[in-house]
Amino acid sequence: MEVIFISADEMKSVFTEILVKNGFPAGKAAICAGIFVQNSLDGVISHGVNRFPRFVQYIRDGYVKPDAEPSLISSTGAIEQWDGNLGPGPLNATFATDRAMKLAEKHGIALVSLANTNHWMRGGTYGWQAAKKGFVFLGWTNTVANMPAWGAIDPRLGNNPMIIAVPYVNEAVVLDFAMSLYSWGKIEACKLNGEHLSLPGGFDRNGNLTDDPFEIIESGRVLPAGYWKGSGLALLLDILATILSGGKPTFEITKQNAEYGLSQVFITINPRSLVNFPSIETSIRSIIDDFKKSVPEKENQTVRYPGEKALKTRVENLIKGIPVNKKVWEVILNL
Amino acid sequence: MEVIFISADEMKSVFTEILVKNGFPAGKAAICAGIFVQNSLDGVISHGVNRFPRFVQYIRDGYVKPDAEPSLISSTGAIEQWDGNLGPGPLNATFATDRAMKLAEKHGIALVSLANTNHWMRGGTYGWQAAKKGFVFLGWTNTVANMPAWGAIDPRLGNNPMIIAVPYVNEAVVLDFAMSLYSWGKIEACKLNGEHLSLPGGFDRNGNLTDDPFEIIESGRVLPAGYWKGSGLALLLDILATILSGGKPTFEITKQNAEYGLSQVFITINPRSLVNFPSIETSIRSIIDDFKKSVPEKENQTVRYPGEKALKTRVENLIKGIPVNKKVWEVILNL
Repeated sequence: MEVIFISADEMKSVFTEILVKNGFPAGKAAICAGIFVQNSLDGVISHGVNRFPRFVQYIRDGYVKPDAEPSLISSTGAIEQWDGNLGPGPLNATFATDRAMKLAEKHGIALVSLANTNHWMRGGTYGWQAAKKGFVFLGWTNTVANMPAWGAIDPRLGNNPMIIAVPYVNEAVVLDFAMSLYSWGKIEACKLNGEHLSLPGGFDRNGNLTDDPFEIIESGRVLPAGYWKGSGLALLLDILATILSGGKPTFEITKQNAEYGLSQVFITINPRSLVNFPSIETSIRSIIDDFKKSVPEKENQTVRYPGEKALKTRVENLIKGIPVNKKVWEVILNL
Repeated sequence: MEVIFISADEMKSVFTEILVKNGFPAGKAAICAGIFVQNSLDGVISHGVNRFPRFVQYIRDGYVKPDAEPSLISSTGAIEQWDGNLGPGPLNATFATDRAMKLAEKHGIALVSLANTNHWMRGGTYGWQAAKKGFVFLGWTNTVANMPAWGAIDPRLGNNPMIIAVPYVNEAVVLDFAMSLYSWGKIEACKLNGEHLSLPGGFDRNGNLTDDPFEIIESGRVLPAGYWKGSGLALLLDILATILSGGKPTFEITKQNAEYGLSQVFITINPRSLVNFPSIETSIRSIIDDFKKSVPEKENQTVRYPGEKALKTRVENLIKGIPVNKKVWEVILNL
């Protein structure tokens, strides 16, 4: 695989132009392009540059409506329910996070839900968005069914990523995790590279746990993170996304011919509402400091808090450019 | 191990009497005893009858103050912060759940936090409490450090149980999970019975994953559920419990000579605030119905939703009595 390095500015201008050609209003194209670039800068290329061609295809197929905007369905106290009207997932999610922060300024805690929205790409995006403005963020999305329940062989659960973020020293601690131990993207990448997973990540056709990506792809049985725990959490997050938004559950999304019309939840908490607000920054820092004192298993390693690696990758990529598979970039330039 | 069967009524009257002898006001003794009995009825004896002697010991040691009540520290919009004043964990948590429901009736969503509280025993208790009254519940607690971070060998994280509950056909779907794959109680029970764990649940002294409880107890390295995922979630839940309550983080609790003065969070959502409230029951039922259609791995099994097993055990134990280790019961009768 030949890798080329693209600067963030160049990538953003290429993406923006393509989105405008595909029906995005100019301002929205720039915001949406910026999210794909930021995800790539942070090293999450599966939901950044590598995903961009499929995002454009979804616009052309009509699953993502480039000019659609969310509309308010219901507002009661600290809760707002919005219809995403099948607009671009990253724009709808950015909007919902903003709304949730505005509401939390008034109520301390707030919940905004989105029905009929689209794939938000990297959920961490919205965690960073809120935490960088000083808010606590808790959010999740449902997905198409892509993971069997623990003890079952047919995929009926989504891997429903969940995000928890808190502000930390002008940046953030951002946990962004799917309910499957490994993403299908990771498993397929390992297969292509002829590598095994670092740990068993699914079952073979005989129902034995395996780290062989080929076997997992054959069986279709990816492993829930924490076995019964990731399975249970995936189910609950789907129930909550569905009932809080009034949108579609995983099993109805799965009946469609593509993954669109998702249900999402955005909860924000305003730490300025808390009596201990002045000491919160010190408090978070003391917990991270203690965590970092962990004795690493391997000598020249340190434990990393969620989001720490993204920050490091971001700095590297800002300096030397974003590493991109040359073939992927050629596909993008021809979009 | 000789097992005897104790009726829920008898257990409650024995527990109530002991709590009164140990300084509980009569009304509170009955409520607290009822929680220990309910946990036992539901099959969670590790946080029911088996835990009762240690709970009484903590009262005698002065860690749990039997007559202490929570006091309001701060109230802003939909958030209330309370000091648990080291009162009995189950009573403080019941109170906080009730407060959160009252607040959610007004605001749609609400958050109540507790600083300086005590072990709430089984977190699912408060999920059932809220869901049976028609509320969505999301809550968690921190604990003493009992689990190394992923990639580390020394325990600096709590296993910080998290609970998510939704109402379901007059009962509830209740997910109640700790961040370690297996509890220390489970690992010690397996060791006593000369059994292995069903899956690798920790490391041996050479840093290899093992299902041998003896090896895990020797190394002290219990496995986070989902490896880096359970580790990251444990860290975030401790940060949130600490900053939202203004209470102690895991590393400060761990400096004490016992596990007391915990930090907890109780979030409730009132589904009656949602525009789709009339269809929510049907919606949850359709998701569970689809989930239950999963093709089981083993022929005469079915997949279970979180809370399903507790409900079945409850019915059995109500009929034939709660199975109790005879020696444990003798210890309790001598308290």
